Amino acid sequence: MQIPHITPTADAALSQALLDAINNKTKPLGSLGRLETLASQLGLIQRSTKLSISDPAVLVFAGDHGVVAEGVSAYPQDVTWQMVENFLANGAAINVFARQNGCALYVVDAGVNHVFGERPGLLDRKVGNGTRNFAIEPAMSRSELDTALEHGMALVRDLPGNVVGFGEMGIGNTTAAAAIMHKLTGLLLTQCVGAGTGLSAEGIQRKQQVIAAAVERHAAADSPLDVLATFGGFEIAMMAGAMLKAAELRKVLLIDGFIVTSALLVAARLQPAILDYCVFAHCSDENGHRLMLDALGAQPLLHLGLRLGEGTGSALALPLLHAAANFLNEMATFASAQVSTSA
Amino acid sequence: MQIPHITPTADAALSQALLDAINNKTKPLGSLGRLETLASQLGLIQRSTKLSISDPAVLVFAGDHGVVAEGVSAYPQDVTWQMVENFLANGAAINVFARQNGCALYVVDAGVNHVFGERPGLLDRKVGNGTRNFAIEPAMSRSELDTALEHGMALVRDLPGNVVGFGEMGIGNTTAAAAIMHKLTGLLLTQCVGAGTGLSAEGIQRKQQVIAAAVERHAAADSPLDVLATFGGFEIAMMAGAMLKAAELRKVLLIDGFIVTSALLVAARLQPAILDYCVFAHCSDENGHRLMLDALGAQPLLHLGLRLGEGTGSALALPLLHAAANFLNEMATFASAQVSTSA
Repeated sequence: MQIPHITPTADAALSQALLDAINNKTKPLGSLGRLETLASQLGLIQRSTKLSISDPAVLVFAGDHGVVAEGVSAYPQDVTWQMVENFLANGAAINVFARQNGCALYVVDAGVNHVFGERPGLLDRKVGNGTRNFAIEPAMSRSELDTALEHGMALVRDLPGNVVGFGEMGIGNTTAAAAIMHKLTGLLLTQCVGAGTGLSAEGIQRKQQVIAAAVERHAAADSPLDVLATFGGFEIAMMAGAMLKAAELRKVLLIDGFIVTSALLVAARLQPAILDYCVFAHCSDENGHRLMLDALGAQPLLHLGLRLGEGTGSALALPLLHAAANFLNEMATFASAQVSTSA
Repeated sequence: MQIPHITPTADAALSQALLDAINNKTKPLGSLGRLETLASQLGLIQRSTKLSISDPAVLVFAGDHGVVAEGVSAYPQDVTWQMVENFLANGAAINVFARQNGCALYVVDAGVNHVFGERPGLLDRKVGNGTRNFAIEPAMSRSELDTALEHGMALVRDLPGNVVGFGEMGIGNTTAAAAIMHKLTGLLLTQCVGAGTGLSAEGIQRKQQVIAAAVERHAAADSPLDVLATFGGFEIAMMAGAMLKAAELRKVLLIDGFIVTSALLVAARLQPAILDYCVFAHCSDENGHRLMLDALGAQPLLHLGLRLGEGTGSALALPLLHAAANFLNEMATFASAQVSTSA
């Protein structure tokens, strides 16, 4: 399996051209704040001072986690497949927000512990019926990991648009993400572990203990891909593959919350230039997300206290991407509008 | 002139019904964060657990300020009318964002120092050719203030929709807004005065001195309406009238940045219940806005470092209003989707 090669977007001449274009718009210098840096980033990704957002899509990757046997989630494992059904029936939050913001939605079975059969709207990329319990053994084999990564890459290769939002569903996956975060950032488990879908303080402590014991058991797991195979989920691995391919193809990556960011953490350790392509949709209320974003040097767009997953933050941030593209493409300049510049 | 009477939205039974409806949606409790409190607020305003956003509009009020004679702005006064022309030609940031987010745009000449003649798309409610220089005399007479407030009320009475966003344009109006903030909150001038469209540190200091001297000169101005007449602008006064009427009619008020919030500060001192109807679009980068929001107990939706005015924050926040309404209206419940609830 070949990890895609990702080219940094840095281009001094284009950066200056973008800055000039932004500063010539009829507004005080810098007054569109974060939208201006976003427009510059999009320009560097698209190698142009004219921006386009075409066929944006959110991919929701679903998978189950063996570690739920340790009692690390507030919800039963069945909720994973039940929520996939909810996605297919258009009843979940991500359906609502994707529809509202003109965003295509792809639901991927990366490894749910359930037989869906052939279902319209469901992309069957099942690597297994959930991962193994990492409290006992590695969550997946290296060959399962490769399969997951390759499916992720292939999915993105087939997408028509130039913006890919990431989302996930998987009971237990904040446990997997917290373990990955701990291993790859070196931050304390107390900083990495949170309430997930709604654990009590006692439940959070138990979750920490489960991860701590597993980290000790799998002390040899060290490289990004080892960590991903040992503690990750099929949905997390598939996202990492999809992200790497999306950046290789110079698409814009919309990064959602805690679990999606943990997949990016792995991808960024393999190909640091991937960060040039990432727009961080929001800072989640899940404990640890803020620190994970800090570790990536990320500046999230939204701060709404979301902690739902599914790619909801990605879909909600999409209008801000449009806003960044539209102001650069459509606003008048001081010259064209005959507006006086600052004294 | 009669100040509209505004009814608080508090309703314990409806609050509970809204909370139940939100909690029954297929998502972990509280996981939509700020969108959940927003949905509850909208429900209380609309007296329903079904929400609607119809014909949202942004009103941009433009006016000139005599105090610019004191050298308090980085741009010449002509930029006010030039930017009004830019609005009419669809070239400004607010045009772009309003168009993108399906928001009607009304441009109001509240008191620009320029003869536009009759122009399609421009609502002529000119109270005067700019205010007087408050460094020397009160910005407007009480009868001019009444005229501005009444025009604002009448404008909103004629709007078809149930969401009104506020925006403004007026070279010098951060000076007026800072003076109002200082008088009505008691915060220090250093906390209230900022760079506006881009003053240097020296320029900011000069602006503070101009306001400090004027505050001393007009020491008797004390009531909210006195303060508004003495330091305000025609666009600020007209916004205050429009806001009061909008809340009386139980519309949702989308509050933009520093200047718009200063108008609300006046309105809220007259009718504190107006705050129940306000959605705070964003926290501006203009020094003082954060503290003004704090003084109102406001939780802004966006934190994008904007400081452009025109109602750009209002227009950019509109998709989040839709998101709050849509998740409550459209998401499946645990029961309808047959998803297991938390253990």
